[in-house]
Order: sequence, then structure tokens, then C-alpha cells
Amino acid sequence: MERPLFSRNIAVLYRLNQKILFRIAKQKSLPLEVGQIPVMMQVYRYPGLTQDMISANSGVDKSTVARVLKQLEESGMVRRDADQDDRRVNHIYTTAKAEQYRERVFQMIHELHDILYQGLTEDEVEHAIPLVMKMRANAEGYLGKSKCTKKEAGGES
Amino acid sequence: MERPLFSRNIAVLYRLNQKILFRIAKQKSLPLEVGQIPVMMQVYRYPGLTQDMISANSGVDKSTVARVLKQLEESGMVRRDADQDDRRVNHIYTTAKAEQYRERVFQMIHELHDILYQGLTEDEVEHAIPLVMKMRANAEGYLGKSKCTKKEAGGES
Repeated sequence: MERPLFSRNIAVLYRLNQKILFRIAKQKSLPLEVGQIPVMMQVYRYPGLTQDMISANSGVDKSTVARVLKQLEESGMVRRDADQDDRRVNHIYTTAKAEQYRERVFQMIHELHDILYQGLTEDEVEHAIPLVMKMRANAEGYLGKSKCTKKEAGGES
Repeated sequence: MERPLFSRNIAVLYRLNQKILFRIAKQKSLPLEVGQIPVMMQVYRYPGLTQDMISANSGVDKSTVARVLKQLEESGMVRRDADQDDRRVNHIYTTAKAEQYRERVFQMIHELHDILYQGLTEDEVEHAIPLVMKMRANAEGYLGKSKCTKKEAGGES
């Protein structure tokens, strides 16, 4: 039996999404490169996350997260606060500058979905999400990863 | 209304898949880096495709495809044949070396899907694919891309 090979479709859709985000970020004059978006979105959504948690949540490997956070710190979009109990651990927060861009950044994500969801019903989209989440959980299980939530991260709610 | 934001799930699943492929490629001692897999898969599946067609099919941008093909040529996995009508255009084929690895490369892709599909019914997977394809078509429509098939590419069938 020929099984449908989902991963190729995922990879193509991912790369097309990256191109669309690149285009919209440029249109909106956002001070973000495409590779910085997944990390920045985690900081916007879950302020106070640690580097490791951002990595676990976004699937971006730790060394890339570290590099991107350094870039974002240099461009004034994030700041770090050392953990009170363990000074080696940093919690990452948005800066005032990042907050000025928050609406435009989320708008970019919504514009991407306006494009992706054309001609699809709400129902269709809602049915596909749990499936992708299950595949994600399977992949994380294989790799031995776990996802951190806002609550576990000790960030604001 | 809060719309589900599919793209983040896609991005995370994509990055996890890359990590799994990296691990399996290593286990199988494949002479392929993860970034070379989408391009190599196109050559395996559609021998005779041009560089531009590989780019359109995989969603990998043209300059990256060019760079990866150069690497694959250097590692003896692909060869080019100039087009008979237009010498500036090259058709890409597998080498004898690549054919020795074909089964193991496809096996890697199947092992990835064994992991991803754990606990999912065939029906669930089959329902999600058209949805991802529709999103892909929407994204391609926005970006003005088009997909090339084996037939259009003039490759073997």
C-alpha cells in the first residue's frame, strides 16, 4: 500500500510560509528577519520564558535560539533577566521597542493565515490542527523533547 | 473569533522532522546532509528535472537549489545533462552512486513517517493531506509560483 508522505507537504508549505513572511515583514518594515520570527513570537506570547523553553516550544535548536536572541537583544527587541534562584538561567522579555511592533507582528501572522486559509472552511482547518499536533507529539516523543507552557515557564499569564 | 494559527504548527513539525531526518541519515550512514534531502528526493523521483523545476517543486529557493546541486555533484550523487535545445538549461539525473543509496534514502523517509503516523488512522492522514495541499496552492498563488510535474519536466515516467 502506498502511504501518503506528509512530511514533504509540510516541508514545502513551511518554505512557502517563510517566503510569504519575508515579503510581509518587508512590506510592514518590521525590524525582524524571517529566522527571528519563531523566537520573537515566543517572547511576545510567553514573556519570561528561558532560552531552553523557547527552543522546546518552537522546535528551533538551542544554539540557533541563542544566536537569534543575541541578535534580538542587539536590535533592542528583547532583554534578559537572570533567574533569582539560578543566575545561569535567563528569562527573556520584550522591550518597549518590541511592544511598539507587537500589533504589526501579529498582523503579519494573521495576513499569512488570510492567504493560507483562502477557500477553506473553519471546520476543515479545525480538523487538521489536532492531526498536526499528534504528529508533532510523535516527533517530540521520538526525539525525547517536551513542550513548555506559559505556566511551567513561570511567565505572566 | 480566535482562528487557529496553522503556520506555527507547520513550522514546529517541519523543524522536528529535520531533526529526525538528521538522526536517521546518520544511523544509515547516508552521504546526504539534511538540507540536501529535498533536492535529492526530487532528483530520485523525477530524473531529468531542471534546477528551476526542482526549486518550484520543493519550495527551496533557486540559489539554494543551485548550491545544493553543486554539493551533490561534488559528492557524486547527481550529474547534469545540458538541454539539447537550450544549452543554458541543465537536466539533473542520479548517478550510479546515488542509485546504490536509493533504497536506504526512501527507507529513511518511510521511517520518518512510521514515527509521525503512530496512533493515527489511515483515514485521518488521508483527510489532512488535501488540506495542506490547498494551503500550499494558496501560498503558491500568492507568491506566483507553479509546480512542475514529471511530465512537464520531460523526465522519465
